[in-house]
Amino acid sequence: MMHTILNHRTIRKYKTTPVSQKMLEEILLAGTKASNTGNMQTYSMIVTTDSTLKEQLCKCHFGQEMVKVAPVLITFCADFNRFNKWCNLRKAKPGYDNFLSFFNAAIDALLVAQNVALAAEEKGLGICYLGTTTYNAKQIIDILNLPKGVVPVTTIVMGYPEVIPDLTDRLPLEAVVHYEKYQDYSDEKINELYSEKEALPFHQELLKINNKETLAQIFTDIRYKKADNIAFSKAFLKAIEDQMFMNNE
Amino acid sequence: MMHTILNHRTIRKYKTTPVSQKMLEEILLAGTKASNTGNMQTYSMIVTTDSTLKEQLCKCHFGQEMVKVAPVLITFCADFNRFNKWCNLRKAKPGYDNFLSFFNAAIDALLVAQNVALAAEEKGLGICYLGTTTYNAKQIIDILNLPKGVVPVTTIVMGYPEVIPDLTDRLPLEAVVHYEKYQDYSDEKINELYSEKEALPFHQELLKINNKETLAQIFTDIRYKKADNIAFSKAFLKAIEDQMFMNNE
Repeated sequence: MMHTILNHRTIRKYKTTPVSQKMLEEILLAGTKASNTGNMQTYSMIVTTDSTLKEQLCKCHFGQEMVKVAPVLITFCADFNRFNKWCNLRKAKPGYDNFLSFFNAAIDALLVAQNVALAAEEKGLGICYLGTTTYNAKQIIDILNLPKGVVPVTTIVMGYPEVIPDLTDRLPLEAVVHYEKYQDYSDEKINELYSEKEALPFHQELLKINNKETLAQIFTDIRYKKADNIAFSKAFLKAIEDQMFMNNE
Repeated sequence: MMHTILNHRTIRKYKTTPVSQKMLEEILLAGTKASNTGNMQTYSMIVTTDSTLKEQLCKCHFGQEMVKVAPVLITFCADFNRFNKWCNLRKAKPGYDNFLSFFNAAIDALLVAQNVALAAEEKGLGICYLGTTTYNAKQIIDILNLPKGVVPVTTIVMGYPEVIPDLTDRLPLEAVVHYEKYQDYSDEKINELYSEKEALPFHQELLKINNKETLAQIFTDIRYKKADNIAFSKAFLKAIEDQMFMNNE
């Protein structure tokens, strides 16, 4: 297990070889073993292999080719629909149409997703998380017929790797760990923690290609721009509200 | 790894035996290997072992005894503070004070948490997730000195198990998996999917103790009540806003 965790890399090039139903079910079952809120299991996994549907979903994920090429796409959803239906059939009045319930269900779905990712990797498959899931939640809701009470929170692309890239860099462990309480960062500390990352030839190359002075500008000016973040924030909050998770009064 | 995933149980009784620093660092390092948004690593792990601090945090977690007894408590936070500081030092203007950025950072933190949970279990430790983290986020922010741009999203209690309980039941796999698109549930299907869970002697006993007619009522009337959910929704949304993640205009 530690080997699988420590050797995780995001796979972006896949073979078209299908994943067997037996292997897929073992992986999905591993997902359900994750901790979840009150054992309510307020999540769903939508497994899409149909090429027409994958093509539609691909557009939601900024047209990334791997979405069409890889054999399996799993959309992980915060899901109170099933639980609410059960309550209504059992003389119980559900009160889960609020933000806290959505967030708890999202936590459930994300822990399931990470179990699925690791189980897949343990079996020799590769995976890639698609952050675009929250950007275009509304479109995904429409394509996958998600009822009220269901919101997609992440997607995993899964299949046999065509190309296995090098491990990605990480900040030194001390950059992301605080002991006892949060110890805020001085400017000197930030410089120290980011120096290795900034010096990587790969990142130096990125600066040249994009004609930018600093690596941080690649993020703020190109990859994760304020205007986009605001537009996607509004759309995602609206999707959460439309799916009946914002009745906070 | 599959063995560790498939044998997960939540541990609620711990020995006071400390976790060695070496083991702890291996576990935290495993956390950082999880996928994350754009490799920005917008999360922090706050490791609390001090008994006074654990006692304070224990109150935020509904006074659950294990929070004080177990040697290690890790609070996982969505954290744009470090990234924003780096941007500001690098002539880059961060635009991450919005809901989408918060949610992406929360996804990062939760995938890290599940890696940490599994790595700990792989090493013979037990863990318990504390959903109460989002309920009392504001109090936790104050106790742990979390600056603007940092919101706690989950907590893991960690230590050597004193009591190892049986595996918890799960719904049949087909209850949480949909193929191609979402297939909504008929009343008959809900009855079928929940029948095994409802028949468990443990759940039958719960009905008697709580004087309830159905298991669903234990959730709606006792464990996860609408009034509580609404109060916690408001408080959590306010904490997200106070930590500067709701500038969506």
